[in-house]
Amino acid sequence: MKVNGVEIEDTFAEAFPIKVGRFLITGATRRWAEVAALEATGFGTSVIMCPAEAGIEKRVRASESPDGRPGVYVQICTFSYKSLEDQILRRIGQCVLTAPTTAVFNGLPDVEKQLNVGFKLKFFADGYEREVEISGRKCYAIPMMEGEFITEENVGAVDGVAGGNFFIFGESQMASLTAAENAVDAIMELEGSITPFPGGIVASGSKPGSKKYSFMKATTNEKFCPTLRESVEDTNIPEGCKAVYEIVINGLNVEAVSQAMRIGIEAATKVPGVMGISAGNYGGDLGPYKINLHDLF
Amino acid sequence: MKVNGVEIEDTFAEAFPIKVGRFLITGATRRWAEVAALEATGFGTSVIMCPAEAGIEKRVRASESPDGRPGVYVQICTFSYKSLEDQILRRIGQCVLTAPTTAVFNGLPDVEKQLNVGFKLKFFADGYEREVEISGRKCYAIPMMEGEFITEENVGAVDGVAGGNFFIFGESQMASLTAAENAVDAIMELEGSITPFPGGIVASGSKPGSKKYSFMKATTNEKFCPTLRESVEDTNIPEGCKAVYEIVINGLNVEAVSQAMRIGIEAATKVPGVMGISAGNYGGDLGPYKINLHDLF
Amino acid sequence: MKVNGVEIEDTFAEAFPIKVGRFLITGATRRWAEVAALEATGFGTSVIMCPAEAGIEKRVRASESPDGRPGVYVQICTFSYKSLEDQILRRIGQCVLTAPTTAVFNGLPDVEKQLNVGFKLKFFADGYEREVEISGRKCYAIPMMEGEFITEENVGAVDGVAGGNFFIFGESQMASLTAAENAVDAIMELEGSITPFPGGIVASGSKPGSKKYSFMKATTNEKFCPTLRESVEDTNIPEGCKAVYEIVINGLNVEAVSQAMRIGIEAATKVPGVMGISAGNYGGDLGPYKINLHDLF
Amino acid sequence: MKVNGVEIEDTFAEAFPIKVGRFLITGATRRWAEVAALEATGFGTSVIMCPAEAGIEKRVRASESPDGRPGVYVQICTFSYKSLEDQILRRIGQCVLTAPTTAVFNGLPDVEKQLNVGFKLKFFADGYEREVEISGRKCYAIPMMEGEFITEENVGAVDGVAGGNFFIFGESQMASLTAAENAVDAIMELEGSITPFPGGIVASGSKPGSKKYSFMKATTNEKFCPTLRESVEDTNIPEGCKAVYEIVINGLNVEAVSQAMRIGIEAATKVPGVMGISAGNYGGDLGPYKINLHDLF
Repeated sequence: MKVNGVEIEDTFAEAFPIKVGRFLITGATRRWAEVAALEATGFGTSVIMCPAEAGIEKRVRASESPDGRPGVYVQICTFSYKSLEDQILRRIGQCVLTAPTTAVFNGLPDVEKQLNVGFKLKFFADGYEREVEISGRKCYAIPMMEGEFITEENVGAVDGVAGGNFFIFGESQMASLTAAENAVDAIMELEGSITPFPGGIVASGSKPGSKKYSFMKATTNEKFCPTLRESVEDTNIPEGCKAVYEIVINGLNVEAVSQAMRIGIEAATKVPGVMGISAGNYGGDLGPYKINLHDLF
Repeated sequence: MKVNGVEIEDTFAEAFPIKVGRFLITGATRRWAEVAALEATGFGTSVIMCPAEAGIEKRVRASESPDGRPGVYVQICTFSYKSLEDQILRRIGQCVLTAPTTAVFNGLPDVEKQLNVGFKLKFFADGYEREVEISGRKCYAIPMMEGEFITEENVGAVDGVAGGNFFIFGESQMASLTAAENAVDAIMELEGSITPFPGGIVASGSKPGSKKYSFMKATTNEKFCPTLRESVEDTNIPEGCKAVYEIVINGLNVEAVSQAMRIGIEAATKVPGVMGISAGNYGGDLGPYKINLHDLF
Repeated sequence: MKVNGVEIEDTFAEAFPIKVGRFLITGATRRWAEVAALEATGFGTSVIMCPAEAGIEKRVRASESPDGRPGVYVQICTFSYKSLEDQILRRIGQCVLTAPTTAVFNGLPDVEKQLNVGFKLKFFADGYEREVEISGRKCYAIPMMEGEFITEENVGAVDGVAGGNFFIFGESQMASLTAAENAVDAIMELEGSITPFPGGIVASGSKPGSKKYSFMKATTNEKFCPTLRESVEDTNIPEGCKAVYEIVINGLNVEAVSQAMRIGIEAATKVPGVMGISAGNYGGDLGPYKINLHDLF
Repeated sequence: MKVNGVEIEDTFAEAFPIKVGRFLITGATRRWAEVAALEATGFGTSVIMCPAEAGIEKRVRASESPDGRPGVYVQICTFSYKSLEDQILRRIGQCVLTAPTTAVFNGLPDVEKQLNVGFKLKFFADGYEREVEISGRKCYAIPMMEGEFITEENVGAVDGVAGGNFFIFGESQMASLTAAENAVDAIMELEGSITPFPGGIVASGSKPGSKKYSFMKATTNEKFCPTLRESVEDTNIPEGCKAVYEIVINGLNVEAVSQAMRIGIEAATKVPGVMGISAGNYGGDLGPYKINLHDLF
């Protein structure tokens, strides 16, 4: 199968369950909302050694937010609701409440699981908070040096999906990288999915575990390393391929992750120098979700 | 005392010791170095609830870096060298090694304390690493999907300083905020200091502890809250002041922090609508460093 | 009348007819489309001393463009179709054809007036061009050093509207400026309108002609100058106002301009420190379009 | 000769004389100075069909500018001092005076040729201007809606150099483009030179005149077109080359242009996938300056 003239391998991405919390950060301008979102979702690429996986989902216009200001939706992901609430509380408390002009609203007000993060944040007000209603939502106004910080009482969370992915093979490193950048830009327009790695891109796609070191949870995927093409048996690097980038996608559900994979692959294959698209799986042992690349189109 | 026509209060910032690790992230272009640095220093505003305090120190030209590529210096700060090594290992391993085109070099090669983070990172190569020398520095080349990741063997660390600060009083919130932005831009040009909060700015300057809740480590500083001016006794908010932003500064030593305070105050006071500059201290109980604002000029 | 608690003066913006050409610039990534668009719409604030008025209208996703790549719509405006064609030819030929990875498509394929700019651009190929069809549109592929430049044959143009506007009064310069920035961000999401001044904002709103110099087409509007409040009779600057910014809006028709004024005013009035909104008119002598602020809401 | 392992052709760039005016734009923050500079230097790639060649030279810190604010130096270039003064007056008057928070200072106060642009701009004040001295420079303060615009009386100009250049051959379009971007970033740090094309990069390097059309001043350089490699005799495209980007450099003198070529080539050759570096010349007929690539190193 080909998309935009680029071969799509007949394989599947293997994804797994994760808990996902979602909230909206608004700001006096979009720029300030984004500054807070970048800080709040930083150090959040992989749960292997980060306390959470996190990313900016999409931007919203002022007319689409409860307080009539521009904003961005973010997602935070961990393996349990307990650790998720802890991470959301810490990341809002330290990276959004502290940021200029921001407010926080529930990004999943209608789901069953609600984490009362806003309720806990209000203790920062030391008794000076006010309860306010904004577009029908129960919020707290916390007096601060800059004025007041508004936070909704709850942040909703769901059983989501982590580890959706695809690989971009390029005839040069920069071709593959620009394709990856283009894919991330396109996914950023979609609802429900994030690309948690730096700039949305993984330079170091890994295999679970290690062939040599029992203490390593993940190590380089030597079969996909261009510089090892001549020295590794069963290399998956085709002739002429200089680099592979991976896009990893988390989302609220498997539909959102699949859509992001499709739109991302369409964007990546538009860039000159892309040789092929594949995906990462581990024999089906890692997770219950198998997203076939050919089924996306 | 006045600077650029703005009153500087006769007070001092109270700062305290912290361990600071410093490394250089280079990239194929400056943009990619910055993408990695933002991810690696995210979720890093305050050790109260973040695993570290972290920030971008300054940009360097290609001609100033060991591999001849543009880059940015970053600092990571925690209270012990043990937790510092753990944080640096995690943040490089998950946010820089994974990022497109980056390499990592020691930012303090000549200090006594050296954390062998690069040595540990090389296990990711699962035995496929090479040792390489770059500008006389001992490095490892780790094969990856994108090509190779270069990391120097060690990252140096010192006994640094955290909590340098100043307050910006504004006749409107946006005057005070623009002044804060200008201060951060100016400090970003300096060597040795970082401003770890979102966009370098604190919207929610706090007091240690709480008047009401014994479980809170820090709560809003009500005497500096403009919306509480009428209701709090002994308010520090002058008439006509609508907002206060704080710039918090960490650095390699007290000289770097002091210099950043001076340059930051000069930049902030250039913005129309700034009414005054002060600083945060807690009766001298928090830390051994007392940086007098008037001594800076 | 109040919007978001801010007084809207009962006055009108006076706008006038202009010819507007519209085209789409796509790129390998959105960033490269924007680089070309910024160059092509530069030196394009006011026809008083610029060869055209020009601006970026809005961004489009890859799925919305003829070549499946991300892009931006731009508008170029002058007083005659002859000068418009000349300006579009020059600006595409020098600022888009020369820019990395771009292509140009007709932004108004269904209107009567079609300028055959692409036909003229193909002479740059010196005979080496190919005719190609992209999504049913007749285009030329021009061989270049970077590969091929694609341009559609025609660019459509209409009788549009220039000079829609509103004023933002602020209690500080930075409050007024941040409100202006927020207004421009919101208008950038809309279809059919541009804000041609630097960053979309006018710092120097003028009156037609001069009281002193017969050779000046426009001079400072002293009645709206805060620093002249005490010295000019009949000042329009209210007490406590430190700055006024103007947003000037051009568009394909009066509906697009009116919508941009409404959305822009809603965004501006959300920013703390905004004291009032007004608009510029010249007794109704300048143009046939009178857009009443109160009619917008 | 090789630089960073990349072959540098033994050829020369052919450059020619041009008049260059230089001024400094400062702003309340660097961001606003850059917004004005982008507008003022737009539609300014080549004098073939633009009214001037223009670009941002470099950024300066607050401490390096006459008014203690951050800023950027820009250069404007045309073939005569008369047209240069006209262009500078129009571009400052329409794109800087109109932009938020900016001021303008002379970028060449010590050269012989001084254009009294500021003197002419002050007529915009309609008699309300004040003369002010800033860091020993004679300036005018023009009352405006946002407050006051400061402009120095004169802008200096010199006999400069246009058309310095080099070509980047890439094994993929994105390798060549990223190398070009890296070169432009590096040149932006230097004093005295600009890269006037979009994003500093030329996608469509041309030859003077045309083989077919007498009315064309410049047409595509078919010998450097990768897609014509098989069909053009004497092609200069090596096997495996997919794209060529050109960096065009103007500057205050031939030393500044040469330095920019050297630093730019060093930066470009650091990017993976770059196959070679050449330069454009026309048998020595175009201009008196011949800058040999091999002499640069």
